Amino acid sequence: MRERYEKLKDKNLKLDMSRGKPEKGQLDVVSGLLTVLSDKDMCLLDGIDCRNYGDLAGLQCAREYWADVLGCKPSQTFVGGNASLNLMHDLITRGYTHGLLDSPQPWCKEEKLKFLCPVPGYDRHFRITETYGFEMICIPMTPDGPDMDMVEEYVKDPAVKGIWCVPKYSNPQGYVYTDETVQRFAQLKPAAPDFVIMWDNAYCVHEFEGDFEPFKDIISLCAQAGRPNMVYEFASTSKLTFPGAGISVIASSEENIAYWSKLAGVQNISYDKVNQLRHVLFLKNKAHTLEIMKEHAAILQPKFRMVLKMLRKELTNKGIAHWHHPVGGYFVCVAAMPGTAKRTLELCKQLGVTLTPAGATYPYGIDPEDSMIRIAPSYPPIEELEAAMDVFCVCIKLAALEKHLGETLIG
Amino acid sequence: MRERYEKLKDKNLKLDMSRGKPEKGQLDVVSGLLTVLSDKDMCLLDGIDCRNYGDLAGLQCAREYWADVLGCKPSQTFVGGNASLNLMHDLITRGYTHGLLDSPQPWCKEEKLKFLCPVPGYDRHFRITETYGFEMICIPMTPDGPDMDMVEEYVKDPAVKGIWCVPKYSNPQGYVYTDETVQRFAQLKPAAPDFVIMWDNAYCVHEFEGDFEPFKDIISLCAQAGRPNMVYEFASTSKLTFPGAGISVIASSEENIAYWSKLAGVQNISYDKVNQLRHVLFLKNKAHTLEIMKEHAAILQPKFRMVLKMLRKELTNKGIAHWHHPVGGYFVCVAAMPGTAKRTLELCKQLGVTLTPAGATYPYGIDPEDSMIRIAPSYPPIEELEAAMDVFCVCIKLAALEKHLGETLIG
Repeated sequence: MRERYEKLKDKNLKLDMSRGKPEKGQLDVVSGLLTVLSDKDMCLLDGIDCRNYGDLAGLQCAREYWADVLGCKPSQTFVGGNASLNLMHDLITRGYTHGLLDSPQPWCKEEKLKFLCPVPGYDRHFRITETYGFEMICIPMTPDGPDMDMVEEYVKDPAVKGIWCVPKYSNPQGYVYTDETVQRFAQLKPAAPDFVIMWDNAYCVHEFEGDFEPFKDIISLCAQAGRPNMVYEFASTSKLTFPGAGISVIASSEENIAYWSKLAGVQNISYDKVNQLRHVLFLKNKAHTLEIMKEHAAILQPKFRMVLKMLRKELTNKGIAHWHHPVGGYFVCVAAMPGTAKRTLELCKQLGVTLTPAGATYPYGIDPEDSMIRIAPSYPPIEELEAAMDVFCVCIKLAALEKHLGETLIG
Repeated sequence: MRERYEKLKDKNLKLDMSRGKPEKGQLDVVSGLLTVLSDKDMCLLDGIDCRNYGDLAGLQCAREYWADVLGCKPSQTFVGGNASLNLMHDLITRGYTHGLLDSPQPWCKEEKLKFLCPVPGYDRHFRITETYGFEMICIPMTPDGPDMDMVEEYVKDPAVKGIWCVPKYSNPQGYVYTDETVQRFAQLKPAAPDFVIMWDNAYCVHEFEGDFEPFKDIISLCAQAGRPNMVYEFASTSKLTFPGAGISVIASSEENIAYWSKLAGVQNISYDKVNQLRHVLFLKNKAHTLEIMKEHAAILQPKFRMVLKMLRKELTNKGIAHWHHPVGGYFVCVAAMPGTAKRTLELCKQLGVTLTPAGATYPYGIDPEDSMIRIAPSYPPIEELEAAMDVFCVCIKLAALEKHLGETLIG
């Protein structure tokens, strides 16, 4: 192993598997977006000039587009700017400064704030609730979704104001919440009247293996269960077109959308409707979006297959790691032998391979088991990815060996 | 007068002079923006793919563009999304939730919050400080800028956290702060260590009469005066290209930009760099921007001249109104006889002409004198504008007459 490590060191690699960024080829595939809205007369539609101020909740056609993709009503959508993260951040911020629709008072006036965080999860979610001083409670993920027994127990505490969810191809494990899990979410009876399910449907159409998997409309399920204002769903085009340069959406009850719009109207006159129109012209509807996603999949699939193949070949049945085989999303999550994740990444770094920092998938950046490692295979070219995975497999084994022997093998 | 009123009523007009929206012709003039970035290879620059995540503070070329326009350094800029209003809102929000760089504590923990509001001013500014519960203190505007004696007095109160400013072509009067006023701002010694000058340079290059008027760089003036973190300057392309679909900027000390970036990094991965690049390609630099502004001026100038001509013809030396002749910006502000603004607008509405609601230019929507009326001539075609101004002049006279006689003339 040490020999293999030294050989890899001589290669002087500089590889990055840290973030879920699409590769250049994926961006090229969708660069028709740049020219799809080239005639100024196309900017006039239904008496609206999308080049001018107005229509805070978004162009009607953009609201219809998102309703089609998410399976809700256009009136239940609010189309935002370049990032759904921004919308999520601002929703939590509004809860903190003003309260949500059903809040007895702004959250900043509460003595204690808690938030449920399925782990491993998305670091940027956790940073939002961290910045507002929430005590973040870890809820273990299972292949069916978050541990719902625990969720149902914790929501009895009125200080618990919400939960972060990535229901389809969860970040980072790539689990899909089962229908039963989704139903149990809709039927939650939290003590806090303003408990909010932050339903980040970031990967709602992001299969890289196989066909599109339909998902339940959480909004109508919550309405049926008698708590229509409990959920806000989020999505964006960041992994459909250009990351950070697309359009985003909040979907929720009409009452929530009206409340949100009132507060958002203090922040903004209107969002970028030219880019909304550009996206609707390019993506058209859900059916056409799924066709475009097939083109992304054609680029992503070989990378994920290669990562999974190497993990299988190098790590199966060695008792040092396990992982789930996702069929969508942007990540593979490897659970290393407890106490070896940080060391694995340190060794990788010495060989020039950067991964998401150990612990990043946990609140406060602390993985109590020091086990979870997120691999983001999308960005590097496949040859580089293979080299990086080679490094990774050597390092995770070395770290396990060191742990087992109780001594440092690599200086 | 009553006869003239009845005749106008028969016209069944439906005209809008309420908001500072560019007209369609202005948008057409800049619609080259839609096609200026049409080749995907143009998205690659200096090792950055502007179609992908990254560079939270903005593309370097976009930061250089704004530094050129505003007369500051690129490192003192942070290029944002579609609206400077959004940045202003979020800055005040950060003050409230986290505190600004030099805040002893977040503003939400303070017992009392006050903000200085030069009046008449911009309603959307006032709504931001209203939503966070600031007590808003009116500072009268003078042709030289806000009454600086009052400002200097009020900033001795540590509860006073900042002031809203539109230094060039103030909204709505179109006054330009004199160099002396700007210097006095830079030399303020507020009691609050986190006092913030919200320097909304919305109309920094927006002359519609005559040549570009240079303005002082408030950032370096504050630095010279020993308080570099006291000012945040804002601008956007909303009235250069497409309102609400352009790019925006914060300019401030490097320390402030670093602090802001840290907090903004929780909200966003990065802003829409494709649109940033599109704008830099189209607007190029300050010199070229000023050429484009000449094209806007060619459309706006006849409208403003007509409005001012009609005011002069109908209202001069009648003792019922006075106004300033702006040479830039988007508004004409008429000070009607005290106690007649609301009635004037009511009469206008009966004739189908909408203006900015009376009081809107004051905090809480209350003009204590009931006098200020904001006219926004940019949006309607010139024939409609003429008809609307005809209505306005009749109504302001009728309202004054009613006031004088103490009786209602129009039912």
